[in-house]
Amino acid sequence: MYSYKELIEKVRQYFSDEHFTGTPAELYKPIEYTLTDGGKRIRPVLMLAATQMFDGDIDDARYAAIGIETFHNFTLLHDDLMDKSPLRRGKPTVYKKWDENTAILSGDAMNTLAWHYFLKNNNRKLPEILKTFEKTSMEICEGQQYDMNFENRTDVTIAEYMEMIRLKTAVLLGCALKIGALYGNATEEEVDNIYSFGINIGLAFQLRDDLLDAYGDVATFGKQTGTDIKDNKKTYLFLLAIQKADDSTRQRLPELFNTTPIDPSAKIQEVLDIYARLDIKKDVEDAIADLHHKAKENLDNIKRPEANKQALVEIAQQLLNRKL
Amino acid sequence: MYSYKELIEKVRQYFSDEHFTGTPAELYKPIEYTLTDGGKRIRPVLMLAATQMFDGDIDDARYAAIGIETFHNFTLLHDDLMDKSPLRRGKPTVYKKWDENTAILSGDAMNTLAWHYFLKNNNRKLPEILKTFEKTSMEICEGQQYDMNFENRTDVTIAEYMEMIRLKTAVLLGCALKIGALYGNATEEEVDNIYSFGINIGLAFQLRDDLLDAYGDVATFGKQTGTDIKDNKKTYLFLLAIQKADDSTRQRLPELFNTTPIDPSAKIQEVLDIYARLDIKKDVEDAIADLHHKAKENLDNIKRPEANKQALVEIAQQLLNRKL
Repeated sequence: MYSYKELIEKVRQYFSDEHFTGTPAELYKPIEYTLTDGGKRIRPVLMLAATQMFDGDIDDARYAAIGIETFHNFTLLHDDLMDKSPLRRGKPTVYKKWDENTAILSGDAMNTLAWHYFLKNNNRKLPEILKTFEKTSMEICEGQQYDMNFENRTDVTIAEYMEMIRLKTAVLLGCALKIGALYGNATEEEVDNIYSFGINIGLAFQLRDDLLDAYGDVATFGKQTGTDIKDNKKTYLFLLAIQKADDSTRQRLPELFNTTPIDPSAKIQEVLDIYARLDIKKDVEDAIADLHHKAKENLDNIKRPEANKQALVEIAQQLLNRKL
Repeated sequence: MYSYKELIEKVRQYFSDEHFTGTPAELYKPIEYTLTDGGKRIRPVLMLAATQMFDGDIDDARYAAIGIETFHNFTLLHDDLMDKSPLRRGKPTVYKKWDENTAILSGDAMNTLAWHYFLKNNNRKLPEILKTFEKTSMEICEGQQYDMNFENRTDVTIAEYMEMIRLKTAVLLGCALKIGALYGNATEEEVDNIYSFGINIGLAFQLRDDLLDAYGDVATFGKQTGTDIKDNKKTYLFLLAIQKADDSTRQRLPELFNTTPIDPSAKIQEVLDIYARLDIKKDVEDAIADLHHKAKENLDNIKRPEANKQALVEIAQQLLNRKL
């Protein structure tokens, strides 16, 4: 069994063995730029961890692992364009470094490239693997659309928010694990459990992200705290605060989230004060712990030796224990 | 054997049996808008014609036929956004009717939907069918990129132009026919010939399109003539004229293609006069006839009863004999 660190190294090696070049250069340069700059490669590592957990040969999942990371990066590329985000992983986004049309077209090509990699290994389970990937792709589009819709709505419920982050973030983790399991020798029930594990970890991961934005340590988290508040993003924290607030606060919060002051520090502080008064941090931590517990149950349902699960357990801990 | 008209009716029926609805509506409405408004459905009709030509059951190709038309419409949707085209088939384009982000995301979803349809029929040749589709998708991205590159170049050769239209237009016709043949019982050699037939027809189709833009009858062609000249598009006609021109005309033409007068009629007339002096129309007609001849040879290489080929021959004639 490979350790978590060894799996990361495997994925790093897979990527450095690939060449994302081609002609015309105007199409392939942005793809190369996007795919060779690292990132955490969480999804391919999850996939390989699932393959080995079910006694498969991780090299069988090699191209699917590259495929899922390629797909993930395509979604980031188009999302950055839609959100007009100038930076990704500390570097200019494709639409900023080149232009909008380059971002649209090289993103489309990267989407196709993901399929190219998935098709490289003609496994007997290929149709099921591809259907899982296709279904997930569509769900991610739906999640992104819900996310955009929520920007213009003032009545988003917590249930709707959880469904949005399930589609936008969690299903791709579930998909990576499920496909990894299919490259192994998992039973149908095991596949279902590993998928649910991915969903629960994914939801917890996103809630943690919401929490870190408000309370994270800038040095560890790597981005400025309070940006969600500054950008009026209706995160889990905001929606929970609305739900728990008394009448006057329930009026005040949306008012604050309707402003974009040049210096946002007073606004951020007022919102954080409201969150503190309503004990939001504790509630979100409880919700994360609950999801983590469910994920653990999913894993417990899978009767494989603990050694097989070790890498996956480590990844989950790594994902969920990023410093506040 | 179904006639050309019956195949069109089949495709029409396939599409009216599908429902392109879903939630969130903001994602699916533009897909439904794009896929239910008709168009000529050339690619699915070609696919079915190839399936029956090789004694296959056209219903086996049903979902692939929907898939290829869905993919084609996705490329139009993103192309219209990149070109900032306000109209398509007489209706506002998605980016105009909604907005740019809607066009990006619903296009991405339509691309995924194409794969969804291709995956619906688990034929034993599915991996080969999907690889053909994936390769073609990538080539179309490359073709679109070359097309965008050419806008900023003054030294495009005719060979480069032919390669661009091969990638941007012809390969999808070849792909439709090849996949249709794979759903039939074609040999490898037959598959190669039907693919080449599609390429040659596709190239001829695009040259015909260039010609029609300059010389087409507005009523029959359905769009204004001279728009390529007005928009400074370096078509086959322009590139051929540059190649054949004397020194002074070789200077004058690019000058004209560097202007965008509010009333373009004088500019269009001057360019058409140059084309007339250089006998461009005749040369393009010869090039089209040559491609048509090659396509006929491809078809002759396939030793199947003439009755099997009838529908395909009719479609090719229909495509290439649109009135000037």
